[in-house]
Amino acid sequence: MAERKPDISWKEKLYIIIYEADTPAGKLFDLILLVTILASIMLVMLESVKSIDTRFHAVLNISEWVITILFTIEYIARIITVKQPLKYITSFYGIIDLLSTIPKYLSLIFAGTHALVALRALRLLRVFRILKLARFLGASDTLLSALKASRVKITVFLYAIVIISVILGTIMYLVEGEENGFTNIPKSVYWCIVTLTTVGFGDITPQTPLGQFIASLIMILGYGIIAVPTGIVTAEFTSQHKGKAPVKEEPRHLNTQCCENCLSINHKDDASFCNKCGYKL
Amino acid sequence: MAERKPDISWKEKLYIIIYEADTPAGKLFDLILLVTILASIMLVMLESVKSIDTRFHAVLNISEWVITILFTIEYIARIITVKQPLKYITSFYGIIDLLSTIPKYLSLIFAGTHALVALRALRLLRVFRILKLARFLGASDTLLSALKASRVKITVFLYAIVIISVILGTIMYLVEGEENGFTNIPKSVYWCIVTLTTVGFGDITPQTPLGQFIASLIMILGYGIIAVPTGIVTAEFTSQHKGKAPVKEEPRHLNTQCCENCLSINHKDDASFCNKCGYKL
Amino acid sequence: MAERKPDISWKEKLYIIIYEADTPAGKLFDLILLVTILASIMLVMLESVKSIDTRFHAVLNISEWVITILFTIEYIARIITVKQPLKYITSFYGIIDLLSTIPKYLSLIFAGTHALVALRALRLLRVFRILKLARFLGASDTLLSALKASRVKITVFLYAIVIISVILGTIMYLVEGEENGFTNIPKSVYWCIVTLTTVGFGDITPQTPLGQFIASLIMILGYGIIAVPTGIVTAEFTSQHKGKAPVKEEPRHLNTQCCENCLSINHKDDASFCNKCGYKL
Amino acid sequence: MAERKPDISWKEKLYIIIYEADTPAGKLFDLILLVTILASIMLVMLESVKSIDTRFHAVLNISEWVITILFTIEYIARIITVKQPLKYITSFYGIIDLLSTIPKYLSLIFAGTHALVALRALRLLRVFRILKLARFLGASDTLLSALKASRVKITVFLYAIVIISVILGTIMYLVEGEENGFTNIPKSVYWCIVTLTTVGFGDITPQTPLGQFIASLIMILGYGIIAVPTGIVTAEFTSQHKGKAPVKEEPRHLNTQCCENCLSINHKDDASFCNKCGYKL
Repeated sequence: MAERKPDISWKEKLYIIIYEADTPAGKLFDLILLVTILASIMLVMLESVKSIDTRFHAVLNISEWVITILFTIEYIARIITVKQPLKYITSFYGIIDLLSTIPKYLSLIFAGTHALVALRALRLLRVFRILKLARFLGASDTLLSALKASRVKITVFLYAIVIISVILGTIMYLVEGEENGFTNIPKSVYWCIVTLTTVGFGDITPQTPLGQFIASLIMILGYGIIAVPTGIVTAEFTSQHKGKAPVKEEPRHLNTQCCENCLSINHKDDASFCNKCGYKL
Repeated sequence: MAERKPDISWKEKLYIIIYEADTPAGKLFDLILLVTILASIMLVMLESVKSIDTRFHAVLNISEWVITILFTIEYIARIITVKQPLKYITSFYGIIDLLSTIPKYLSLIFAGTHALVALRALRLLRVFRILKLARFLGASDTLLSALKASRVKITVFLYAIVIISVILGTIMYLVEGEENGFTNIPKSVYWCIVTLTTVGFGDITPQTPLGQFIASLIMILGYGIIAVPTGIVTAEFTSQHKGKAPVKEEPRHLNTQCCENCLSINHKDDASFCNKCGYKL
Repeated sequence: MAERKPDISWKEKLYIIIYEADTPAGKLFDLILLVTILASIMLVMLESVKSIDTRFHAVLNISEWVITILFTIEYIARIITVKQPLKYITSFYGIIDLLSTIPKYLSLIFAGTHALVALRALRLLRVFRILKLARFLGASDTLLSALKASRVKITVFLYAIVIISVILGTIMYLVEGEENGFTNIPKSVYWCIVTLTTVGFGDITPQTPLGQFIASLIMILGYGIIAVPTGIVTAEFTSQHKGKAPVKEEPRHLNTQCCENCLSINHKDDASFCNKCGYKL
Repeated sequence: MAERKPDISWKEKLYIIIYEADTPAGKLFDLILLVTILASIMLVMLESVKSIDTRFHAVLNISEWVITILFTIEYIARIITVKQPLKYITSFYGIIDLLSTIPKYLSLIFAGTHALVALRALRLLRVFRILKLARFLGASDTLLSALKASRVKITVFLYAIVIISVILGTIMYLVEGEENGFTNIPKSVYWCIVTLTTVGFGDITPQTPLGQFIASLIMILGYGIIAVPTGIVTAEFTSQHKGKAPVKEEPRHLNTQCCENCLSINHKDDASFCNKCGYKL
């Protein structure tokens, strides 16, 4: 990064600040962004609490506007500095960034849209990216690769859960009937998922002896089934643990450089070209 | 499959379409069957919702009849094409296939039987067979073989759960009594299973201090017990993971051929005779 | 067993039938005992259901007496045949056997004691002993030895759970107070155990924002803590799985012989003396 | 310890009794302390139960004062005997020790502070230290080191849980709205944590079909997610199990000596100087 020529344009400077985190300015930007996002979530939460909103409506509204404007500036800056603006706009994070600013503006025109400001909570996902620092990357990488490796098994498992729930939910609807809260099959299936996952809200409960007997079977089934995803993931972790144990010891020096052209990350420190699109870094 | 002689009868052609999935027609048939089953489940669900049934009764009823007739045709076709019809009729899937068509016809004669159409949900199990494609087979095979290997241990475990529940449920009945919702021992045992599996509906809860103390012990017991099935299955997965890791890498080329005589599946690609009954494929 | 001299007394014959299961008569005795115990549990359950008891009171009462007399005969036979009757009477199973007959006799004199018949459920524990056949022994042995090996760790864990519950329960009592259902500290601790073990009855729930915040922390803690017993037991199972895998393959030929003198079991087939007390078998 | 010179001051003698557990007097002190702490917790609990407090108020109040005075004496003795009193006073245990005596004295002056006596429950944490005997140390060491090794992974995991809960809680607030109990976003997030951790109180439950559908997804997600911490901790345990198995066999002879200067523990038996501050033991 130190070899970067001093005569880069303000656009490139801004790009480095916004999309990368190796320079002090970039780190500061990320920190401010992190704080602003957390503050915006806190604001949305406080606003939703009636008693607080009534007392501090003016303060909350102004803070809301300040954050909306900050987010708008960030959104525009991101579009300007990136080489392929359309790619950013249509990307997952681009859409979320837009969704977290638009509702506040719309609330000036339409009355009901204010509640959509809550969509700003989705910006929390960016926190994952901001905090993708070397140390945490290591841990979440292991997590993600273990989950990825067991993806097919977990899909089959979830698939089985849904089919079992539909079948057992239908049977419970026939057994218990509308008079005991199982008013229709979708609700019955919902109850079955609540029971199978051992959540057990208790808003709907079987009343007939036969229904309670079947419910007992469902609960024991759910209690046993929980062993399956655990077994899958654990087996994956255990094998990774053994294979990658020595690798984990060596420090990770991934830089936070991000390709100007295609926004891909995870380039090596000494990389001169993007390993995805070949664009000069 | 390509070496099959061109002069096979229409029955054999139909057989290949219905029971196998290697030909384009066979794949199309499976796809249509899958969609029809899912549609039929959706129909049964919608019908059970009062508000929807009142508004769209005619549409739902007609769709219901269309699907019933389609299922009937499929059922008859399966009987005609298979070499040993009785074997199919008395098989698990054969009975389910019948149960998913009969209730609708019966509803013409008897009033109350319509609700049994919900039994059609059992046809969802066929989805497992339809989707038994090479890739998923691998995953569910591992799942099933791990579960099979730990079958005895799990049986002992479930057995212990039931005995513990009966004993603790009886004790709770004596401690709490009818005035606190533990009206009889079966209900008390039901409550105990609800608690031991950490489902916790909350429709029945201990009210006396002693009852709450015993309940606390049951909960901690249940919380600890969950480790047992998890441990069993995980140990199985871990050992399979190690032993079968290289095997899993090689692609699986299981064909979907199904013996005309005994309906057994999982034949090798180059098999000329059924490995179960010796019938020529 | 075949070398046993034919001139053994009727006492010894009875002993072999009651305490061992290698002879056809012994097996039959165990089977009858198993069925009788299950029938007695079923009876106790049915009796506790008001509607059934009202209609079939006479039938249930007579069956109850039949079973009580059968159990009494068995109890007396066990005392007569065993060499050290006091050892049996004061043993765990001896006390349970007595407790399952006494209450019915007492109900003739005192009115309230009939409910204690439910203590008969404890006899279900004998089922474990009856079913201690070679095959199940293998599985439950692995289970038990894994649990035994991780006994100290599990004790420390349960200990930590109780201390955490007391501390968090006390804090919740201070935060929520009596007006929100946390009427006293023991109840608060009970609530905390309900929450920590993810049972969640919902009979008591935090109402204040601070209480809900602390409750959230408790829940996430409980969700994370469940990993600990699972980890302990799984690690134990996995290591046993590896070490004992070849051992498990070889068939177990444990006989069901039981020392007449000290009631210890698990003697080898060719053993001539008890391996606990040296008494001749 | 036997080589200790007989001419040590009473302060040093007291120090050895209070802070160490190798001498009979030290062991007795620890035992009395343990019993007193448990008794004080029991007292606080009984006092919080209205019916008991009304009947035995005088007895409870006197016992309360006895324990408060005992704790005060212990607190003062600890300050006097230790070389660096300030270090003890500002240490974690020092603050807890103070907090468990102060409220009772304050209750003489201010009316409302009595409830704070419940803070005494925090003294239970000292039980961990008292019971830090060789045997349990081994087990809890393995527990702690396994948890420490997976610290980063667990942090990332908990972090993800919170973010998922905020996002899903916000969505549920938008979907269900105030009329169905999701009165504000913090409450909605609380509900989401209750559901995701499979606790499921049932005080707030989704009422709309869409809400129930999203709730089902959250439950299945939570059911699957539980595999992650389990997998992490198990993998850690399994690897420790293998590596440390022979180490665990050898008996641990840690003495309970505690540095007079800096209060650090876990010194070797033959240590003459504190391994933390170099002070002579």
